[in-house]
Amino acid sequence: MYKKLLSNISSYIHLSEEEKIELETLFLLKRIKKNEFFLKEGEVANSVGFINSGLFRYYLNEDGEIKTFAFSKENEYISNHESFLTKTPSTKSIQALEDSEILVISREGLKKFYEEFNEGEKFGRKIMEGLFIYYLQELTSFYSHSPEQRYLKILEQQPELIQRISQYHIASYLGIKPQSLSRIRSRLA
Amino acid sequence: MYKKLLSNISSYIHLSEEEKIELETLFLLKRIKKNEFFLKEGEVANSVGFINSGLFRYYLNEDGEIKTFAFSKENEYISNHESFLTKTPSTKSIQALEDSEILVISREGLKKFYEEFNEGEKFGRKIMEGLFIYYLQELTSFYSHSPEQRYLKILEQQPELIQRISQYHIASYLGIKPQSLSRIRSRLA
Repeated sequence: MYKKLLSNISSYIHLSEEEKIELETLFLLKRIKKNEFFLKEGEVANSVGFINSGLFRYYLNEDGEIKTFAFSKENEYISNHESFLTKTPSTKSIQALEDSEILVISREGLKKFYEEFNEGEKFGRKIMEGLFIYYLQELTSFYSHSPEQRYLKILEQQPELIQRISQYHIASYLGIKPQSLSRIRSRLA
Repeated sequence: MYKKLLSNISSYIHLSEEEKIELETLFLLKRIKKNEFFLKEGEVANSVGFINSGLFRYYLNEDGEIKTFAFSKENEYISNHESFLTKTPSTKSIQALEDSEILVISREGLKKFYEEFNEGEKFGRKIMEGLFIYYLQELTSFYSHSPEQRYLKILEQQPELIQRISQYHIASYLGIKPQSLSRIRSRLA
């Protein structure tokens, strides 16, 4: 159950055998069914999840208009990091798009991990660097690329995601209507 | 010369007296005149600067169109973190808008700081968390707010910046023409 998580963390830092055992007490298993939520708008994010299996989408409800921000799949971490770090109510919701299994660490657990594990702070630094790069590239992409270019990027970098996510959600992520996505797909076909 | 820097770092972590002295060997003073560059498009960012005094803008040249991303002033860090972390050529330039004085740490210096200072990794984690929150909020803002709302936000949160930055650069940051910014300012006056 902890295999993927341990392998993920070990790609960033060295874990001693004691720490591996300790980790299993910090992360608790949670199953989230398709369409259910890891986090809802208005709640404060007090935990971070590691996705063992499944798929989630992040979205924002803006005066009734749903805007999809991001998708996360197995071997990735989910949380509203903004809400988690600032302890403010989440403006986004995180919803399962498939039946999912996640390993959840609480705020206190993460604090313990950072402070008491030999390379805990280093792990935190590296995870934050990765997240930062991801969001920075998203920001640049929104700024500079057309919906078609952004669609091509997913197709190129994460083709399996296109299979797993409905056209409706992909269109929402690209910020266009499903009909416009159909036209893009026809042009590319 | 190192007073602001030490005070800034000490707001994140505890520094021993030895570490304070060591820090001064890792950060070197550099003066950058108005309109000169800390980093140019195409260069790999191999250092991070702490602004002792002065003001910088980040911009992107997109087929001749200049898009301003961000401004940084005294007590803040500058670098193209994306280029620095991924060691890829910078797509952005960082230019001084005022005669500036910065303290520069090299990639090797920062590695030393992270690895050899007692709370170095914790500092890295906290800095990355702060940067992450900043960019995440920028991303949300581009997505959700009009240029007028974004102008009001600067006016509210950093009114002194409006005084220090030309209308031309502020308009570029908001993604609008200087004439449109003039209209917004008239409406708000």
